Amino acid sequence: MSKRILAGTLRENNIEQTVLLKGWVQKRRDLGGLIFIDLRDKSGIVQVVFNPDQSKEALEVAESVRSEYVVEISGVVVKRNEATINTLMDTGKIELMATDLKILNKSKTPPFAIQDKTDVSEDLRLKYRYIDLRRSSLQETFKLRHQTTQAVRNYLNDNGFLEMETPILTKSTPEGARDYLVPSRVHSGEFYALPQSPQLFKQLIMMSGFEKYYQIARCFRDEDLRADRQPEFTQIDIETSFMTSDEIMEMTEQMMQKIMKEIKNVDLALPLKRMPYDEAMERFGSDKPDTRFGMELIHVSDILAESTFKVFQGAISTGGKVCLLNVKEQAANYSRKDLDKLTDYVKVYGAKGLAWLKVEGDDLKGPITKFLSETEKAELVSRADANDGDLLLFGSDKASVVYDSLGALRLKLGKELKLIDESKFNFLWVTDWPLLEYDENLERYFAAHHPFTSPVEEDIDKLATDPGSVRANAYDLVLNGYELGGGSIRIYKKEQQDQMFNVLGFTKEEANEQFGFLLEALEYGAPPHGGVALGLDRIIMLLAGRTNLRDTILFPKTASASDLLTDAPNEVSEAQLDELAIQLTEKKD
Amino acid sequence: MSKRILAGTLRENNIEQTVLLKGWVQKRRDLGGLIFIDLRDKSGIVQVVFNPDQSKEALEVAESVRSEYVVEISGVVVKRNEATINTLMDTGKIELMATDLKILNKSKTPPFAIQDKTDVSEDLRLKYRYIDLRRSSLQETFKLRHQTTQAVRNYLNDNGFLEMETPILTKSTPEGARDYLVPSRVHSGEFYALPQSPQLFKQLIMMSGFEKYYQIARCFRDEDLRADRQPEFTQIDIETSFMTSDEIMEMTEQMMQKIMKEIKNVDLALPLKRMPYDEAMERFGSDKPDTRFGMELIHVSDILAESTFKVFQGAISTGGKVCLLNVKEQAANYSRKDLDKLTDYVKVYGAKGLAWLKVEGDDLKGPITKFLSETEKAELVSRADANDGDLLLFGSDKASVVYDSLGALRLKLGKELKLIDESKFNFLWVTDWPLLEYDENLERYFAAHHPFTSPVEEDIDKLATDPGSVRANAYDLVLNGYELGGGSIRIYKKEQQDQMFNVLGFTKEEANEQFGFLLEALEYGAPPHGGVALGLDRIIMLLAGRTNLRDTILFPKTASASDLLTDAPNEVSEAQLDELAIQLTEKKD
Repeated sequence: MSKRILAGTLRENNIEQTVLLKGWVQKRRDLGGLIFIDLRDKSGIVQVVFNPDQSKEALEVAESVRSEYVVEISGVVVKRNEATINTLMDTGKIELMATDLKILNKSKTPPFAIQDKTDVSEDLRLKYRYIDLRRSSLQETFKLRHQTTQAVRNYLNDNGFLEMETPILTKSTPEGARDYLVPSRVHSGEFYALPQSPQLFKQLIMMSGFEKYYQIARCFRDEDLRADRQPEFTQIDIETSFMTSDEIMEMTEQMMQKIMKEIKNVDLALPLKRMPYDEAMERFGSDKPDTRFGMELIHVSDILAESTFKVFQGAISTGGKVCLLNVKEQAANYSRKDLDKLTDYVKVYGAKGLAWLKVEGDDLKGPITKFLSETEKAELVSRADANDGDLLLFGSDKASVVYDSLGALRLKLGKELKLIDESKFNFLWVTDWPLLEYDENLERYFAAHHPFTSPVEEDIDKLATDPGSVRANAYDLVLNGYELGGGSIRIYKKEQQDQMFNVLGFTKEEANEQFGFLLEALEYGAPPHGGVALGLDRIIMLLAGRTNLRDTILFPKTASASDLLTDAPNEVSEAQLDELAIQLTEKKD
Repeated sequence: MSKRILAGTLRENNIEQTVLLKGWVQKRRDLGGLIFIDLRDKSGIVQVVFNPDQSKEALEVAESVRSEYVVEISGVVVKRNEATINTLMDTGKIELMATDLKILNKSKTPPFAIQDKTDVSEDLRLKYRYIDLRRSSLQETFKLRHQTTQAVRNYLNDNGFLEMETPILTKSTPEGARDYLVPSRVHSGEFYALPQSPQLFKQLIMMSGFEKYYQIARCFRDEDLRADRQPEFTQIDIETSFMTSDEIMEMTEQMMQKIMKEIKNVDLALPLKRMPYDEAMERFGSDKPDTRFGMELIHVSDILAESTFKVFQGAISTGGKVCLLNVKEQAANYSRKDLDKLTDYVKVYGAKGLAWLKVEGDDLKGPITKFLSETEKAELVSRADANDGDLLLFGSDKASVVYDSLGALRLKLGKELKLIDESKFNFLWVTDWPLLEYDENLERYFAAHHPFTSPVEEDIDKLATDPGSVRANAYDLVLNGYELGGGSIRIYKKEQQDQMFNVLGFTKEEANEQFGFLLEALEYGAPPHGGVALGLDRIIMLLAGRTNLRDTILFPKTASASDLLTDAPNEVSEAQLDELAIQLTEKKD
């Protein structure tokens, strides 16, 4: 028997060869005494013909096969006649004349067809994930994931990094997101936590003298899930010693350049653009701006400082601001009803309303014009570079609400109005992040990134006097409006880490209980170090041109963190709980 | 400022260059007004000289540095004079004349010195793992681990495999070892389990049509730990569709050949030897024989069938057997006290005693000679190929006890008597495993490997009539007496999997509750498939010539599954438990 050959690789140069194929029956058609089977394997599809002149036995077996049967077929590759050539198939110029057919395994009728376009519910697709994954678009996505991962490894290996594995059973440190916990059987009443990231371990690796570490690392967060979140996810995790933030950003860029070339054949121009956090917020209302289109926020507080419109005036006089988006040439396309819908949309982001104006000729029309002086109108038109037919949408509130609502509205309109060039890959570094965020309810600072991020050199003194104004030595990488990840230079001096915990409201005892091992390690020759972590799932999503993160994860979980295929999580036995010395109780709030 | 160069890379061709080094102070010596510092970074060590003529300032700073300080040093590479050349150091022909020294971070006196030979307790080394890992032997081990992992990936990538990630939060299926459980917050009262291996997922990947999968996969088992076990460990996990067991073994061999060449520069001759399980037990008393030395078990039941020695006679008449080890030329070296110690040793393996004989001239001496006829003695001498000065050690019991005890004794003596050529890498496939093991206490069969292993074709009929005699289509890879891992061809037909669960005593309901998703998947076009899984940690241990598995894992746990560095597991807050709707209870037996 000849060796198996992959169906999708057959071409005209295989003509007259006898070959052995194994795979799945994509479909069967009976036509004029012949049977045609499209045979699918991981390489693609080829047409197989069963002809009574060739083999009556094979034809008989072929009569019993159905879609998704697993079969083994021998036959001779022949040229198709001109009329039946299929130019849409890679193998469309040839077909296999079957001499032998063996059924390896049967299949019930699948719950949905194996085809790229599908309108089957996602729940059904997830329950039968092993059928869904046979679709060629998902096959391609996981090939791309494989290739991307290897490109990352090749780049890092070539640059002296060691791939290292950090533990999954770790210590719970409640600062940050919610931990998944694992009860210990040996140490009753104690728990491991699954790592939210290998952050502390990768810092310890630097203190271990390895200097260049990476890992394609599984991370876990027990958070309420959104469409683009999963309870477990994968990040490209990198840490280095003795490198500056500039050097780490350069290295990360080169890695992305290599990925873009290998996976998308796109030449990424370096260095990537950089933008301080404040500028990103002011121009795009977002800390991860999509720079593939304009329609930036236009600041008009100065123009409207004396406005008689109470909404504007109130926002400005209480330290807030007024900004607008100029939606070019869309005034005619947005009815009052449409604008009401946009108003509802921005309310989700905390806005109380959405004032608007339409440009008609040289004039501005709309409900709020009566509150505007001629000077104000003229200055608005000039500042907004507004022309006949433009639609102006206003946000007025405290800065964070204006940015959040107009930033989101900008993205929504950008998509709706097809302002976005989907072929672009716009990378951007966002830098100069705030180190700390103040929580007014809890009346304490939280680390904006994590408590191990170092302040920028010039701001260190302000940590004691004005913590809120201290910038972090941190950088986020943004692609097309998605945060791919980020990193920072870490604190490597014991005194600075002590001070940081102090600013965050930890007592010495609390800091020691949770992070004592880190504080101690800082006293034994910790090198200056920093790194970066990029979300692999999201990178794959963007490279594959997908919009659902679940399509990039082989066996994903639903928004309620269930696996519909295996039915996890599930109940376990009393005996298992007894061994762990835990019992179930009523859920408390 | 020049760019940093790695200390260990400096050679004579760098002489007269001004370089910048960063790293750790390995040690400082003061000598005749000069200060010498051995500077260590990830590449190695170089000697730095501080000389008042070169820089008084640098010399002054040098006076304050201690071991493990992190420093930045500029200077000029100079040739050492002949008298001070150190041939033991790669950089020993040169040294750095320092012009500048900056302390980047201080260090307290480390709890132990950074040197390869250490007699510090392992607990202390684990608590200060980040200091222990600075030792060059551990640095080398993790480089080797990195290189081995990449060699595996390169081989598999080149052979059409896709690296894929399976979930860590999975469903608990109590068949097998004990699961680590993770309480679900969203689904109160339900639990995820950490995977003992990706077994079912990799089978589902085959049912998803990917055909060739691999993963460097983290696995978890909540078992009582031995020296060579860890609660989390890593395996090279591989699965393929449409391949025979021979093809999978060949592929695995080629992968090992590549590793041996790249990592150890050893040419591994293929095909590797294969040995059926029964033969391994009979010849070596082990299912993972160390074939680097002889001293095989010699079967003498037939000679002693009529023995008047009750111990032998009792064993043989009740279906057991008598075997011996011939410890060549060691009769004189084992006193009665030594032999008592060996007796204690085999008792751990269930043996009731250890009969022995010494060969003196043509005769046999020892307490049991009085029970032996001249014919029996002569036949024993002949069968054992015994010569003057040999020591014969007997095991007599049921076969499993004889094999376990003599198998272990053989290994112990092989090591003690230095019969093992430590430079050898003896690979061996053990094949034809039993499919099932009968548990006499629980009065049921258990899967010897796992319930998804297929029987060999010829034995399938016996599954209904004589399950205990059915052989598995399974294979284990052994290296130097260690099981590296193994694999099998899996069951891919629904009816056979049903039958298997039935033999294992599952009701249909139980089988469906635990493995319903697999049983269902088998009905939708599951291809024939099989694979292999190899323990990466153990491979590294053997390649690195180490004996402690913990030295191959970056942040290992102790025998009680604790992380002494971070102090995991630890207590968590009531609030965390409340969210998970669990509470602590007394441990029950």
